[in-house]
Amino acid sequence: MSETAQDFIAALTFNSDGLIPVVVQEQGTKDVLMLAWMNVEALELTFATKAATYWSRSRNEIWVKGATSGNTQQVVDAFYDCDADTVLLTVIQQGGACHTGAHTCFAQHQVELP
Amino acid sequence: MSETAQDFIAALTFNSDGLIPVVVQEQGTKDVLMLAWMNVEALELTFATKAATYWSRSRNEIWVKGATSGNTQQVVDAFYDCDADTVLLTVIQQGGACHTGAHTCFAQHQVELP
Repeated sequence: MSETAQDFIAALTFNSDGLIPVVVQEQGTKDVLMLAWMNVEALELTFATKAATYWSRSRNEIWVKGATSGNTQQVVDAFYDCDADTVLLTVIQQGGACHTGAHTCFAQHQVELP
Repeated sequence: MSETAQDFIAALTFNSDGLIPVVVQEQGTKDVLMLAWMNVEALELTFATKAATYWSRSRNEIWVKGATSGNTQQVVDAFYDCDADTVLLTVIQQGGACHTGAHTCFAQHQVELP
């Protein structure tokens, strides 16, 4: 079901800090790039501008992904899950998604399974 | 870098409830199936048994995915991100990942972008 940005945001359940986790997936490769957090304002800005915009829990501020690095994320699509407490964002990633420069934030540490 | 299960778990940062978000991705299709939460015990069980095992925040208990439904998740791989505060799990999914029976939890609600 397709919903307006306003209805989409109104349906979400936020945590006690007013935040919701956002899984970011690259269009095409379907690589999972990162997990970030949004509040209502970040969601509204993300949908209005199509530039992925998050809430920084360490800096306590709204943060446009790539504003400093140039590694922006153009939003292609967004979904929320059956519990309405997680968002999945599909993006076109410019450059590396990770602050280390890596393509994804999940590239460096892998478990050895028995 | 590949790490033993013990080292992998020891490196993680958990939230104030002792939990870490886990993004679950299907091997092959690379579909994002769901987001769930694990504590240390769930991580240990997941890596020891290779059956994805979560912490249920609603029931306050350890929960082996598919124990009731049969829709189990066999763990293929696990990664943690640059901040060590999110896990990415690659799985072989039996049946639907969603409690609604859907293949993924993100299938039902999509935003209309302008």
